[in-house]
Amino acid sequence: MEPVVVKAIQDEYPDTFSWCYGCGRLNEKGHHFRTGWEGDQTVTYFTPEPQHTAIPGFVYGGVIASLIDCHGTGSASLALHRKNGHEVGDGAEPPRFVTGSLKVKFIRPTPQGVQLKAVGTVQEISPTKWKVDAEVYAGDTLCAKGEVIAVLMPDTFVKHGEQ
Amino acid sequence: MEPVVVKAIQDEYPDTFSWCYGCGRLNEKGHHFRTGWEGDQTVTYFTPEPQHTAIPGFVYGGVIASLIDCHGTGSASLALHRKNGHEVGDGAEPPRFVTGSLKVKFIRPTPQGVQLKAVGTVQEISPTKWKVDAEVYAGDTLCAKGEVIAVLMPDTFVKHGEQ
Repeated sequence: MEPVVVKAIQDEYPDTFSWCYGCGRLNEKGHHFRTGWEGDQTVTYFTPEPQHTAIPGFVYGGVIASLIDCHGTGSASLALHRKNGHEVGDGAEPPRFVTGSLKVKFIRPTPQGVQLKAVGTVQEISPTKWKVDAEVYAGDTLCAKGEVIAVLMPDTFVKHGEQ
Repeated sequence: MEPVVVKAIQDEYPDTFSWCYGCGRLNEKGHHFRTGWEGDQTVTYFTPEPQHTAIPGFVYGGVIASLIDCHGTGSASLALHRKNGHEVGDGAEPPRFVTGSLKVKFIRPTPQGVQLKAVGTVQEISPTKWKVDAEVYAGDTLCAKGEVIAVLMPDTFVKHGEQ
């Protein structure tokens, strides 16, 4: 059986912020990325669908970029939530991050039909800015590396979300 | 009426390479990005669908990254095709690129419900490696900047595609 994230940070986002095409649990057409702790690293598993192709047989880079993007914001949320004394499932609402910047280096073609695993290492840069280094594996093969600068969600987003 | 790319490089890719989730004309579930010349710059227009949301009202960053990704490889293809003495529509098969690396800086939240325009400036680094600097506008507003290092498709892809 393929591994899954049982306690995902995305389960804790309030409904208003759960429509993300990448990781929103309420977006019926989205990817439903789920990010959780695995030791002191973060993980997100995802099996691309057949249409998520680049050249037949290989995964589309934009989907890998999307995986790294949401894995990054989710990882930052997990890390600040833990720093604030909370864990997923304790009833506290986690902080929500947006992506400031995203970098992806494609190491080798990513095969289709294999579950992908994004592994994240999280580092605090400032109270409102966190860096997440990510590696994306297909099985044991490292296919892409990424970096996300995640920024605590600014008020402009929150106000909009509350409208 | 919203602007469109009439002569798109993606129309010229052989069928085997036209399944990309971002820009493949044969991928029924894909985004169908179309990239062409506008003066000496390249452009790709795209209106995100309602599900391509981050927070309600704003476009998902992974879709913007996807737009920049395919805009980058398409722009590199356009540029090398022109360098080789060809233009879209003259019957010659264009070179096909893959993404070596992708960077996206999100300048400001990208509003939903607006046609996006990616504008590319292409620079040759080597005969097989091209750099595309991209800016993504929603109307007149610059929302994201990107950089793609596009690499001429290696034989391993071609061989796979021909199987």
